[in-house]
Amino acid sequence: MPLPTDLLGIDLGGTSVGAVRWSATDSRVVEWVRARTPHNGSAAAVVDTIGRVVEKLGDLHDVAGIGIATAGLIDAPSGRVLKATNLPGFEQPVPLIELVRARLADLHPEGLTVRFALANDVNALARAEAALGAAADESDALVVALGTGVGGALVLDGEVRSGPRGFSGEIGHVIVQPGGRPCLCGGHGHLEAYLGRAALEREARDRHARGRSTLLVDLAAERRITSSIWDRSLAAGDEVAQTLRLEAAGALSVAIGQAATLIDLELVVLAGGFAPVLGRPFRTEVERQLEAVSPLGPPVIRSARLGDRSGAIGAALLLA
Amino acid sequence: MPLPTDLLGIDLGGTSVGAVRWSATDSRVVEWVRARTPHNGSAAAVVDTIGRVVEKLGDLHDVAGIGIATAGLIDAPSGRVLKATNLPGFEQPVPLIELVRARLADLHPEGLTVRFALANDVNALARAEAALGAAADESDALVVALGTGVGGALVLDGEVRSGPRGFSGEIGHVIVQPGGRPCLCGGHGHLEAYLGRAALEREARDRHARGRSTLLVDLAAERRITSSIWDRSLAAGDEVAQTLRLEAAGALSVAIGQAATLIDLELVVLAGGFAPVLGRPFRTEVERQLEAVSPLGPPVIRSARLGDRSGAIGAALLLA
Repeated sequence: MPLPTDLLGIDLGGTSVGAVRWSATDSRVVEWVRARTPHNGSAAAVVDTIGRVVEKLGDLHDVAGIGIATAGLIDAPSGRVLKATNLPGFEQPVPLIELVRARLADLHPEGLTVRFALANDVNALARAEAALGAAADESDALVVALGTGVGGALVLDGEVRSGPRGFSGEIGHVIVQPGGRPCLCGGHGHLEAYLGRAALEREARDRHARGRSTLLVDLAAERRITSSIWDRSLAAGDEVAQTLRLEAAGALSVAIGQAATLIDLELVVLAGGFAPVLGRPFRTEVERQLEAVSPLGPPVIRSARLGDRSGAIGAALLLA
Repeated sequence: MPLPTDLLGIDLGGTSVGAVRWSATDSRVVEWVRARTPHNGSAAAVVDTIGRVVEKLGDLHDVAGIGIATAGLIDAPSGRVLKATNLPGFEQPVPLIELVRARLADLHPEGLTVRFALANDVNALARAEAALGAAADESDALVVALGTGVGGALVLDGEVRSGPRGFSGEIGHVIVQPGGRPCLCGGHGHLEAYLGRAALEREARDRHARGRSTLLVDLAAERRITSSIWDRSLAAGDEVAQTLRLEAAGALSVAIGQAATLIDLELVVLAGGFAPVLGRPFRTEVERQLEAVSPLGPPVIRSARLGDRSGAIGAALLLA
């Protein structure tokens, strides 16, 4: 019997669960499926969704391993998600690998021999971009993922660095302005306070409450400030939206400059759904400001190349 | 004939040239010599001093390699010092390894077979501390060397990281305060502007010129603000000296916090001659302020353990 060579990668996010079947012999995605993340408040429902997504990817007999990437704080060796506030039922530790294994074992009374691995979603994304995407031709890169918060990962010598506590690359919580804007984590002056979608929404509402009119809040009212509201506000030349974007670019350039100087980095990969929302002017402004804060010369900035599938591909590659 | 097992390490500084004979079989220093760095303005004089120091370390027949650590900007693969402003005659590139090899070959007409290596002085110091000193029991550490400027080195997975341009660990030029104090390098808000001895001397003189009386300048007058002047000023409770020390501690804590967060570091080693001058209150203040700027928990701070010899030991270990 030939050894199984396919790998499955699952990207568990607050909105959707994406999954790939990855052929290790061909180095390519042979199947890609997606389901909505259930929001009924139970980890069991999430595990069931993962089980159904895995079933859609076909027979497990050819599968050597299943990698899962998830938002939140994880303990990779034990396969547990310690806390993931954007996943229902994951406010407390969840033994995710154990639960997924049990869910799949029910369907395979003959025994399930696949290996499992768990990783942080940004680390998985970075692994995929380093192997096949925007950083494939460089041995070192900083990956910055712009979303609700700001995640990051460090690729050094071709490998995603984990660090003793699994926190390597956590650029969202480096200080870009001592004593600066309060961060949702409780600190002050962190990059995420200037660049995370949640922090910017709070900041826009604060400015609005202090009398600064802005389309961001006028259009959103009590709802979330969505990507399309950001688009419309920026396109209309809304001053608060543009100022927040400018300040975000300044903060990101300082954080990138710090990292590039400290580590001697020449490449930064921008990923995450909020990057395209901030758009080309944001990227240009970061590049402009980087000149002044990079004594060793500014690193090159590239956009992530693998899009939506990067987290799932990186999860599969955990076992490659 | 047994293979040679000793290594020589040379630490070329602006004040002195220190050198060790290192026994690789015993893992210890078997000889240590020091000479004054000549200041007649010629690189040839420096090379001659290195030659004489090597001769004092005994026969080269047992020596497998000679490592040289130097301040300034180097190109390790070619063995050249590109620029070292505190070494006479090193304002322009000097092919140091080639010159030292030629100097020693003159004495060995039978042929000289030792290998040579060149490294940055702070990287050499970090290599020694990682192998035998304050970081010997940890796989990762940030080494910060406080002197005329502020140097740094990153130890990751037990190895001193060089980086593609040899600049890894250059914490002196990370930004701790956007738009802050001008750095001697031309940038703004760099750590070195708040913590380097030369930058602090300039800042003390600026404050004095703006009407703030300070012992630092009163005692030094036109001469350099020496370590003993710092000692006396701090001991007398001089306000400018104490304020500069407090601001230096704040800047260093921010820089350490950034690095510890980005890389997930748990250990920082403080080295260099200016660290003891700032003394215990400085270290305590850094530790106090680190609490507020380390979202992952503050790293432990230790003092370097190998003292004056660390650069020379690290240079020898380049070839181990």
